[in-house]
Amino acid sequence: MDFESFFREELSQLRKEGRYRVFADLERCAGRFPRAIFHGGGGPREVTVWCSNDYLGMGQHPVVLKAMHEALDGCGAGTGGTRNIAGTNHYHVLLERELADLHGKEGALLFNSGYMSNWASLSTLASRIPGCIVLTDALNHASMIEGIRHSRADKAIFAHNDAADLRRKLQAMDPARPKLIAFESVYSMDGDIAPVADFCDIAEEFGAMTYIDEVHAVGLYGPRGGGISERDGLSHRLDLIEGTLAKSFSVMGGYITGSAALCDYLRSFASGFIFSSSLPPTLAAGALAAIRHLKTSSVERDRQRDRVQTLRRRLDEAGIPHLPNPSHIVPVMVGDAVRCKQISDEMLERFSIYVQPINYPTVPRGTERLRITPTPLHSDEDIETLVQALSTIWGALGLQRAA
Amino acid sequence: MDFESFFREELSQLRKEGRYRVFADLERCAGRFPRAIFHGGGGPREVTVWCSNDYLGMGQHPVVLKAMHEALDGCGAGTGGTRNIAGTNHYHVLLERELADLHGKEGALLFNSGYMSNWASLSTLASRIPGCIVLTDALNHASMIEGIRHSRADKAIFAHNDAADLRRKLQAMDPARPKLIAFESVYSMDGDIAPVADFCDIAEEFGAMTYIDEVHAVGLYGPRGGGISERDGLSHRLDLIEGTLAKSFSVMGGYITGSAALCDYLRSFASGFIFSSSLPPTLAAGALAAIRHLKTSSVERDRQRDRVQTLRRRLDEAGIPHLPNPSHIVPVMVGDAVRCKQISDEMLERFSIYVQPINYPTVPRGTERLRITPTPLHSDEDIETLVQALSTIWGALGLQRAA
Ligand SMILES: Cc1ncc(COP(=O)(O)O)c(C=O)c1O
Ligand SMILES: Cc1ncc(COP(=O)(O)O)c(C=O)c1O
Repeated sequence: MDFESFFREELSQLRKEGRYRVFADLERCAGRFPRAIFHGGGGPREVTVWCSNDYLGMGQHPVVLKAMHEALDGCGAGTGGTRNIAGTNHYHVLLERELADLHGKEGALLFNSGYMSNWASLSTLASRIPGCIVLTDALNHASMIEGIRHSRADKAIFAHNDAADLRRKLQAMDPARPKLIAFESVYSMDGDIAPVADFCDIAEEFGAMTYIDEVHAVGLYGPRGGGISERDGLSHRLDLIEGTLAKSFSVMGGYITGSAALCDYLRSFASGFIFSSSLPPTLAAGALAAIRHLKTSSVERDRQRDRVQTLRRRLDEAGIPHLPNPSHIVPVMVGDAVRCKQISDEMLERFSIYVQPINYPTVPRGTERLRITPTPLHSDEDIETLVQALSTIWGALGLQRAA
Repeated sequence: MDFESFFREELSQLRKEGRYRVFADLERCAGRFPRAIFHGGGGPREVTVWCSNDYLGMGQHPVVLKAMHEALDGCGAGTGGTRNIAGTNHYHVLLERELADLHGKEGALLFNSGYMSNWASLSTLASRIPGCIVLTDALNHASMIEGIRHSRADKAIFAHNDAADLRRKLQAMDPARPKLIAFESVYSMDGDIAPVADFCDIAEEFGAMTYIDEVHAVGLYGPRGGGISERDGLSHRLDLIEGTLAKSFSVMGGYITGSAALCDYLRSFASGFIFSSSLPPTLAAGALAAIRHLKTSSVERDRQRDRVQTLRRRLDEAGIPHLPNPSHIVPVMVGDAVRCKQISDEMLERFSIYVQPINYPTVPRGTERLRITPTPLHSDEDIETLVQALSTIWGALGLQRAA
């Protein structure tokens, strides 16, 4: 077996399909977000970022940076261990308490990423609960899919956000078997939102456990940033609420919250939690500061909503087609991988605007898009420049305008 | 199904077996390692940590802290995205270059943890290389086991560190099928070291790909801290070298290094790499500083070796049984979960020494132990206090002394 040739051939296949990924080498600049330095071909230059998941710009907020500097001075660089072996830091304990409170739950458990929290929790629950069947939304995130796959439990995929289909699937199942329903609140690529209350009703009726991924909602929805479950007053009806520290909370890490027994159970049995060095104190301290701030401040959320509305209005006026949805995500649809990359390249080259093209496997083929995420820190002028740039390229490439 | 009762019963089973884990809530103190503040029952108090994997104490080294403060001021808290979507930071690019150089490879790829680098790389390679069979050491780490399991590829487990058994297993296999041999260099619980050169010979003979986990060796072995593969001049014979940023390099994160095509392949196909927000600039900057420092400075390695030798000699003199091995890890064997926890508790209560008991599933049942990791920062006095404490407890509990 010639491994090298195999790797090279698979990569050239990606190139042929126009979906070989080139990462934009960016240097974020604290205090100047959404501006960043792009290290590209012709030397470093300033660009405006329009596709960040630092949704509220907390990554440069003084309360977050101060907390991180303090933790660094106080506790040093890392923890030096797994949570069980020398690696539980006092900041972890404080952060887990804060997260439990944020979601109105008894307990919380930190992981090193949102990916790991989903993968480890779902694979542990579905493999260890005897006879468990998983009901999973058709558009669930890769980390959930892989966790369920890893468990080797039986599963049924229900149509995306379709309560009627979920109910049909449950009705056809042996009532005696334990069931776990897994879904997200805000789906990050289309920006649509699950019918969470309906899912809770159905789960109750069939005695199923509910698992919600609020990665793209925490910090952003609900009066304290507790996500869609808080906004809709449903937290107590969801058995497990999962989130990330890497988007609105601006650092890195993942978590789950739930009953004390559930958290203790995953703490005790999830391989991906047990056998990995824990989050550095700086990250826990930064997340703690961001969460506390967003629990009481709505300025950032209000301003973000305003920016989203303004951008949508301006896109409509310019006839740039975008997917309507009830969230903060503005998908500008292109529908072709090569074309999508071309638009993105021109935005960067000609207008110093960075919006990454999104293609398969992140979204289905034929739905390639530019996924735009307005933050409180994008000015009216930034919006104007973006819309002008898109409009110019739309014209130059002869792309279809919206009615 | 009563999920809550199920969780509680499983937890009480752990308690019955004496292997329910209680995490020590520690506050590390930059500048005072191995001292830390223990937040226990009777209020916070100072303890000496003897089980940290911050093996060289780089977690408080001024070059590391300075680099992290600078990255925080320069780039802010996090990256705001996955590597592909706004989340590649210039520090990632620099760190990947540095890691490739450290291991004499063309490329490197960062993950959010060592666990993720193993899980994602092994599951991707073994599932995507057509007909791949994995040969895996019987004592490989959980992250490797889960990665291989996730791939659903055929596998053969060879006896721990046993080149003859590996060869027998290979001989019995279809020569046409692609083979991947996965093992560690330093095994963290026994501190023994794999016969890496023999494994390379065998791999060459059978045309197999080699995958080595150097998590407990990077920074510590080889003139530049490139691990056992560097020390023994074998880097070029290993196809993939995996490591962590969370132990000797003192922050958090994982990586692989290898040919440009291999790294690009995993970058393009590994779900756990693609679909997760990237490492914060602070962590990448801290790791970069630690690696660069340890490439040219051997003071820390030399002093650590001296501390290990001194501790071993003093344990021998006191008749405390410990496992001989050629590494920096000193396992004091107890062989019983309840007893092991009891010793650890007494060390903490009576002597303010923190050594976590290690039990199943981290080590096989019946081999429960205290795993002691001397660092350059443990003084002669610290060693004396530790040995006295162990000796007192050995006497009080009537434990068997070594000859
Ligand atoms: C829905 C969803 N869940 C989980 C994750 C993973 O979270 P993290 O980036 O913290 O690994 C992501 C993306 O990053 C996501 O979009
Ligand atoms: C051999 C080995 N590989 C990988 C890992 C995981 O690395 P990390 O802690 O960076 O997740 C560990 C332990 O932490 C380990 O002992």
